[in-house]
Amino acid sequence: MPYVKLELTREGVTREQKQQLISGITNLITDVLNKDPHLTHVVIQEIELDDWGYAGEQVSVLREKGITADKK
Amino acid sequence: MPYVKLELTREGVTREQKQQLISGITNLITDVLNKDPHLTHVVIQEIELDDWGYAGEQVSVLREKGITADKK
Amino acid sequence: MPYVKLELTREGVTREQKQQLISGITNLITDVLNKDPHLTHVVIQEIELDDWGYAGEQVSVLREKGITADKK
Amino acid sequence: MPYVKLELTREGVTREQKQQLISGITNLITDVLNKDPHLTHVVIQEIELDDWGYAGEQVSVLREKGITADKK
Amino acid sequence: MPYVKLELTREGVTREQKQQLISGITNLITDVLNKDPHLTHVVIQEIELDDWGYAGEQVSVLREKGITADKK
Amino acid sequence: MPYVKLELTREGVTREQKQQLISGITNLITDVLNKDPHLTHVVIQEIELDDWGYAGEQVSVLREKGITADKK
Repeated sequence: MPYVKLELTREGVTREQKQQLISGITNLITDVLNKDPHLTHVVIQEIELDDWGYAGEQVSVLREKGITADKK
Repeated sequence: MPYVKLELTREGVTREQKQQLISGITNLITDVLNKDPHLTHVVIQEIELDDWGYAGEQVSVLREKGITADKK
Repeated sequence: MPYVKLELTREGVTREQKQQLISGITNLITDVLNKDPHLTHVVIQEIELDDWGYAGEQVSVLREKGITADKK
Repeated sequence: MPYVKLELTREGVTREQKQQLISGITNLITDVLNKDPHLTHVVIQEIELDDWGYAGEQVSVLREKGITADKK
Repeated sequence: MPYVKLELTREGVTREQKQQLISGITNLITDVLNKDPHLTHVVIQEIELDDWGYAGEQVSVLREKGITADKK
Repeated sequence: MPYVKLELTREGVTREQKQQLISGITNLITDVLNKDPHLTHVVIQEIELDDWGYAGEQVSVLREKGITADKK
């Protein structure tokens, strides 16, 4: 009985990327734990940049400073 | 001290239905656990259909295929 | 697609009470929203009294002072 | 590795207030637990008044009755 | 800024399986969203079988009846 | 109506530190948002080191390598 909540900053995640995340996480759980996928629910929640704080600062402020979350 | 979070797909839940869920859950907790209702908070969160995955697929895709969550 | 999280202070909730909460919430959702119960998951999480704060105080401290959460 | 979720009713919280909450919580955790702030994430989630139930009633109904959450 | 919560019934998940879930989810998010993995936190929470309800019944009861969550 | 969930790795947080976190967060919310503290609940959840993943690795593994979360 797995339930997964995925919280992300709202920065242009597409419908296709969401589908990739949902199917990828569900398949991973099926592979690692042998769970029936009909018992796995994945919920994605996008968070506005003013509402996510990192190291004490709003992500909206970090982005204005040019600081991204991109992999280098 | 109960706190309840209820996550639902966003599919036309009305204000009256939300009130029924809130009062029903609060009353249930009062009846079963004898809790003062002034200590019970219930939060409803509606989730877009693209953001809920079931069995590895977005609910929006399931709905397009005519698959519902209705009780038969 | 409902998912419910119920957080409670750990104060002697029995297995039977948990079952009453689970079936009561699931039935309520089925009645109000006409959802297939096979899509409803309910998770109960008991929280230690040192770990729940109310009005700025640990519930363990409130209980030591004789303050309960019981319905009057 | 702290993660903090702060759920509030949506009642006009400003960007500046959010920043005060984010920096205040992050600093508190750093002070009390000596945690590197780069490992602390704070997420604020505003909840519509119809979606928050207190003592079995929607907060929107409580507000219509003139009942506020203000400190006296 | 991704945060992931993975809730599972407590049924013998090993440390190695947890590591596979953590690295698998983190890699998936990096691949799909190009996120710096140093900003991704994954939290696993195991839930006792009495505390998870499915279709209105405790999972502990379902397991006693021989009903598993295994993939067929 | 604020509800706060604070997730921390389980690494020797004392009862007194928990009380400082609970009163500090509650006071902050009262100061910034003018909320009645009797409507603020704070829940602390400690997570085992095997169950928290950072940058794709279990925190238990990071700690074995001598990597801490301490502020420098």
